[in-house]
Amino acid sequence: MPRRRVIGIDAGGTKLLGGVVDDRLAVEHRVHRLWLGEDSRRLLDIMVDVVTEARDVAPDIEAVGFGIPSLVDQRSGESVMSPHLPLDGVPFRDLMSERLGLPVVVDNDANGAALAEQRYGAARGASHVAMLTLGTGIGGGLVLGGELYRGSTGAGAELGHMTVDLDGPPCRSGCPNRGCLETVASGRAIGEAGVEIARRRADSALGRAAAAGEEVTGALVTELAHDGDSAAREAIEQVGERLGAGLVNLVNVFNPEVVVIGGGAVAAGDLLLGPARAILAERGLRPNRDQVRVVPAHFGPEAGMLGAALLALERDPR
Amino acid sequence: MPRRRVIGIDAGGTKLLGGVVDDRLAVEHRVHRLWLGEDSRRLLDIMVDVVTEARDVAPDIEAVGFGIPSLVDQRSGESVMSPHLPLDGVPFRDLMSERLGLPVVVDNDANGAALAEQRYGAARGASHVAMLTLGTGIGGGLVLGGELYRGSTGAGAELGHMTVDLDGPPCRSGCPNRGCLETVASGRAIGEAGVEIARRRADSALGRAAAAGEEVTGALVTELAHDGDSAAREAIEQVGERLGAGLVNLVNVFNPEVVVIGGGAVAAGDLLLGPARAILAERGLRPNRDQVRVVPAHFGPEAGMLGAALLALERDPR
Repeated sequence: MPRRRVIGIDAGGTKLLGGVVDDRLAVEHRVHRLWLGEDSRRLLDIMVDVVTEARDVAPDIEAVGFGIPSLVDQRSGESVMSPHLPLDGVPFRDLMSERLGLPVVVDNDANGAALAEQRYGAARGASHVAMLTLGTGIGGGLVLGGELYRGSTGAGAELGHMTVDLDGPPCRSGCPNRGCLETVASGRAIGEAGVEIARRRADSALGRAAAAGEEVTGALVTELAHDGDSAAREAIEQVGERLGAGLVNLVNVFNPEVVVIGGGAVAAGDLLLGPARAILAERGLRPNRDQVRVVPAHFGPEAGMLGAALLALERDPR
Repeated sequence: MPRRRVIGIDAGGTKLLGGVVDDRLAVEHRVHRLWLGEDSRRLLDIMVDVVTEARDVAPDIEAVGFGIPSLVDQRSGESVMSPHLPLDGVPFRDLMSERLGLPVVVDNDANGAALAEQRYGAARGASHVAMLTLGTGIGGGLVLGGELYRGSTGAGAELGHMTVDLDGPPCRSGCPNRGCLETVASGRAIGEAGVEIARRRADSALGRAAAAGEEVTGALVTELAHDGDSAAREAIEQVGERLGAGLVNLVNVFNPEVVVIGGGAVAAGDLLLGPARAILAERGLRPNRDQVRVVPAHFGPEAGMLGAALLALERDPR
């Protein structure tokens, strides 16, 4: 029996990754685009081009799934709020469906990633799963009772925007809150912790790199930490402990079987997850904390694309 | 057609309220008990007595629902962790079912209250509802997609135990976390804010009451605030703003249609809810913050009993 095929598109803040994906989540063809500063009209044109290119190699595709870094109203398919792309107020689903002449599904990118991890990845077999994607910000996705949880209008599961420090620093990425988890436990927060610790510890590899004018990013801190620099490890440990405070919320509130940590920052591995798990073991409620596994994501940079494809494969027939 | 009847029992930290309740949530008979310091065996005896007494007036009852201030494992019916009553590790459902010879349902008390509000109370008609009960601590309940959300084993929805202040004061009631919402926004937190403000503002009604040796409780602060004392109002406003930080979490994560605030502290009314709503309007994510209503509970001290009865009425047939 021939396999069903769809196109999955992960439209991130600076790049697009598309793929033709079958119903076992095998990827048959990939398309990449970089973008920066394009306006809304141009962005949508690029997405249409990518789908058209992918359809040339797979004319039988059934539907297209888009993961976008937006709060999406699932009733209307509108991208309501999109801090990283000019998609605020765009009636995304209807517009793309009309232009493509295909069924279109659109959702927040982290929702798709969570679904991919729960169906085929690190949380396979679990039915209550929370996922955090640690990048510049923190995305969130929830699978509850085996189904993606989106809230009353589809804009829920913004797990990076839980207050964990109520008098803390202002949040970014279009969020008007203070002290969100994203401000203390994202990839960017690792870089910021690195900058601060580099000042105090000029004799460390991290301190020397900063003094030499290297930009102290989360990626640099992670690399130095893996090389054994104790200052870089201190920065990651500090962020890991704050991540742990966020895990306590997830575990007390959702009582999940698995929490999946994805996004670029998970490259720090157990240097980050170890301290986070330790805080959870110390501060979480029983029995929840003893019943949950905190694991790195199975899917790397393709999680968003695969998730978008899954959303298209699992779409409601209309 | 005769109505179906069950018994609902709200077993609180210091007292029990039971009732014979029909399937329209009409209460036909009430039983009260006070307790303090009883051991586990004696507590269970009292509960059996109360049910026996209620069955004398309603021999046709179908089942008994218990709301207890515990984290309950729904797979086994065990009360796993119960800070206010000696019920840790008690196999509650099986034990009571055997002693009573009736189907027994047991759940966290705030879960039942949330269900009652969603089915018949302040959140009627909504399918995504979060509820906080502000008392000595903060209980939480979630109705998501029309159903009570309990998590993978039944111990979820501990909304009072979300970290909102990660380096904050230690939590109480058996919770090993720091800076839980409960530490800054419960009824007890109103009393604590009152104590602090009374010191600074000796000329206020609140300051004079404290100086005269009155115990500054949440109830006293609320009473003085309703009488117009500005120091007491300041205390409630401060707690309301912190409650607002908790509401931001709920609204960003669950995207609910309604958040219901119950428990004794809601006696402060809009003096408390006004500042909480203002913080939410300022700090919540769009569109979520614009789509949610924050309302006081419809059911007062009987919410737990009615919720326990509802759980029995809606039990899975076994």
